[in-house]
Amino acid sequence: MKISIKTILLVLLSLTMFSLKQDKPTKVIFFGDSITQAGINPGGYITKMKEMLEKQGIKDKYQLIGAGIGGNKVYDLFLRMEDDVLSQKPDVVVIYIGVNDVWHKASWGTGTDADKFGNFYTAIIKKLQSQGIKVICCTPAAIGERIDNSNQQDGDLNHYSNIIRSLSSKFDCPLIDLRKEFLAYNLKNNPTNKEAGILTTDRVHLNDTGNQFVADLMFKAVVK
Amino acid sequence: MKISIKTILLVLLSLTMFSLKQDKPTKVIFFGDSITQAGINPGGYITKMKEMLEKQGIKDKYQLIGAGIGGNKVYDLFLRMEDDVLSQKPDVVVIYIGVNDVWHKASWGTGTDADKFGNFYTAIIKKLQSQGIKVICCTPAAIGERIDNSNQQDGDLNHYSNIIRSLSSKFDCPLIDLRKEFLAYNLKNNPTNKEAGILTTDRVHLNDTGNQFVADLMFKAVVK
Amino acid sequence: MKISIKTILLVLLSLTMFSLKQDKPTKVIFFGDSITQAGINPGGYITKMKEMLEKQGIKDKYQLIGAGIGGNKVYDLFLRMEDDVLSQKPDVVVIYIGVNDVWHKASWGTGTDADKFGNFYTAIIKKLQSQGIKVICCTPAAIGERIDNSNQQDGDLNHYSNIIRSLSSKFDCPLIDLRKEFLAYNLKNNPTNKEAGILTTDRVHLNDTGNQFVADLMFKAVVK
Amino acid sequence: MKISIKTILLVLLSLTMFSLKQDKPTKVIFFGDSITQAGINPGGYITKMKEMLEKQGIKDKYQLIGAGIGGNKVYDLFLRMEDDVLSQKPDVVVIYIGVNDVWHKASWGTGTDADKFGNFYTAIIKKLQSQGIKVICCTPAAIGERIDNSNQQDGDLNHYSNIIRSLSSKFDCPLIDLRKEFLAYNLKNNPTNKEAGILTTDRVHLNDTGNQFVADLMFKAVVK
Repeated sequence: MKISIKTILLVLLSLTMFSLKQDKPTKVIFFGDSITQAGINPGGYITKMKEMLEKQGIKDKYQLIGAGIGGNKVYDLFLRMEDDVLSQKPDVVVIYIGVNDVWHKASWGTGTDADKFGNFYTAIIKKLQSQGIKVICCTPAAIGERIDNSNQQDGDLNHYSNIIRSLSSKFDCPLIDLRKEFLAYNLKNNPTNKEAGILTTDRVHLNDTGNQFVADLMFKAVVK
Repeated sequence: MKISIKTILLVLLSLTMFSLKQDKPTKVIFFGDSITQAGINPGGYITKMKEMLEKQGIKDKYQLIGAGIGGNKVYDLFLRMEDDVLSQKPDVVVIYIGVNDVWHKASWGTGTDADKFGNFYTAIIKKLQSQGIKVICCTPAAIGERIDNSNQQDGDLNHYSNIIRSLSSKFDCPLIDLRKEFLAYNLKNNPTNKEAGILTTDRVHLNDTGNQFVADLMFKAVVK
Repeated sequence: MKISIKTILLVLLSLTMFSLKQDKPTKVIFFGDSITQAGINPGGYITKMKEMLEKQGIKDKYQLIGAGIGGNKVYDLFLRMEDDVLSQKPDVVVIYIGVNDVWHKASWGTGTDADKFGNFYTAIIKKLQSQGIKVICCTPAAIGERIDNSNQQDGDLNHYSNIIRSLSSKFDCPLIDLRKEFLAYNLKNNPTNKEAGILTTDRVHLNDTGNQFVADLMFKAVVK
Repeated sequence: MKISIKTILLVLLSLTMFSLKQDKPTKVIFFGDSITQAGINPGGYITKMKEMLEKQGIKDKYQLIGAGIGGNKVYDLFLRMEDDVLSQKPDVVVIYIGVNDVWHKASWGTGTDADKFGNFYTAIIKKLQSQGIKVICCTPAAIGERIDNSNQQDGDLNHYSNIIRSLSSKFDCPLIDLRKEFLAYNLKNNPTNKEAGILTTDRVHLNDTGNQFVADLMFKAVVK
């Protein structure tokens, strides 16, 4: 068998491209609210994931980027998706939103209607997927850690989580079901039915245990 | 043994008083909101209880009075307790309140804070008991019949029900735990997780099955 | 003219009673929310009124008592009226309430419906007047000091103030129209349409100028 | 002077293009909520404008299109702008939004924060103008017609109207100041301070007089 120069060049080119592709880390953007904004702080869930990557010797394979802004609801993500996500050409986007859509109903009168929550969430998934981006969905973890469904927003959090679960299934996006996981954890670790202090500092934002808990769940979903 | 006329008269008097007391029915006031206001309509839960009393041949032993006003919250009961309850000198008062205290948060911005709900509820129990009236408490049944804790107000209804359970225990009042009973019923009878139509017409107000369901539970608690 | 012993005794008695009455100061209770709770602090409006009394040499003629509790709405006043006001047998009660009844609609979903605001306010006036107590009403001053009616709660504050004005007229209670006075002051002194900093620190609670402004208005109404 | 064939052809072509351009009516889209949705009904403000065009014999010069959907807030317009407006390539878009952004705070807990209202409104103007579309802004007219600034949402409506006024000036868009015009009309025509019935049926939606009033103001702004 004779191997032409052309063939050799093609093989070399392929190897080069493969190696280039290998060299380029998978870019993952965490797209969310204040919980994600705090995720890039020391001890934050994104910071912890970076440390986990380093420990496993694969820190060059993933670029983890936080794109969280305090007070954001689903429509805020939609509004800033172009500037804060698409412009960065990520490979993966983890959508972690919903707490403020529910919470702000009671605290400001400016939550998001359930049907419109679904509409905007759908629009975000569609737009990202149309750019070839892999979308991972998260349910909103908690507003209060009581284990008997007596936190004020439990009903709505469960309802909006159902919407996210349904969309993640419909659009074939992996789901990180934080709400389910948080409740399961609290059922084991919150025997006195406390409002906060188990995985959160203030019923919503993550304490150190909470950040590690989220980091572990995210890691499993994001890193292969 | 000689029996004096005086003794005879005393015995006769006692018998008369006993019989008079027997003749006087136990007066029961149902003190609540629109659900109770509708309770005196044909097919309403109070009307059904009257029919049950008649069927059992004890309709003369109980006087059932509806004192429900649409839109009432716990503090409305407190405000009109003197005029609508105490003035009637009831033997028993069934307090059935809480739906609007929770519901009106979202629909008007005028719900009742949880701590103040407890304060007014306590004040009502204390005042009624100080007049020798037996108090029976009810938890608020439902705002939505979904069985997976995804009705918007489930968290608050559970929280306010916990407050009522705690007060009923503290002040030694029998409890009709409608919230618990409604959920149990729906878990058996609402397999498709509908919002309404099982025990309610509109997520809150009772349909015929609901009125019978409440009547049965009330009957057990009120009638000996 | 002959003066009988009886006449002399009557005159003496009158003088004695007058002097006894003079010795007993007029007891004034300021019944309200956090604004009144802060009124007894150094620099607070009640403290300032005491200093004004002292400066005028009439500090023995008036006993000024603060009965303000943070977060109170009109129904909270009604609930604690017996313990905190009637038990002290005041001569005058200044009712200064309404800010939270409006404000908490947006911030907690637990404001007070306008019609019920009127009902509870009426019940308080009636009860106090039935004990021979003189009632003075105040309109709620401000939630935000913008002068173009663009503070979020302006509409409701105006509406609830109208209710108070109407009740003060109906029950013949002097009115301290703080809302009207605050707006007039701001129209002169807030040319850049600021939200706070003129009479309030935070749109609601009084700064030093605000405390003096309220003290002056109250003084005119309370002290003869 | 000699006129070449080329010149003659050019003139003919110009005339043809001019006449073609004349033949194509100015396409105006009214982009809004239920008020605009009802605007295309018989008697609606858009229908009335069409009749006015016909009466003036210029009905071929303007194509008026209603794009109103009940319950819409500013972010709903942003979400459906591509499908419902841009795809139709209009010449002019009249943005008439804001009532629900304010109103739904109290009735559903799902209004729009003032700053985000401004952000989305800005994004809509920018996108439309980037396509060469002329944008006309409207302030939200009324939620209640009382003339003493005592309608619950007056403060917010004034605040959000200020935001729109400011953006219309910043982006050089003509402004139809419905809020200002409605108040002026009511000051003359609502002497008994009624909540509804002057320009609206129900405090928000237009009665026949209201539809004509809006049609007249729109007409002046849209038709040259």
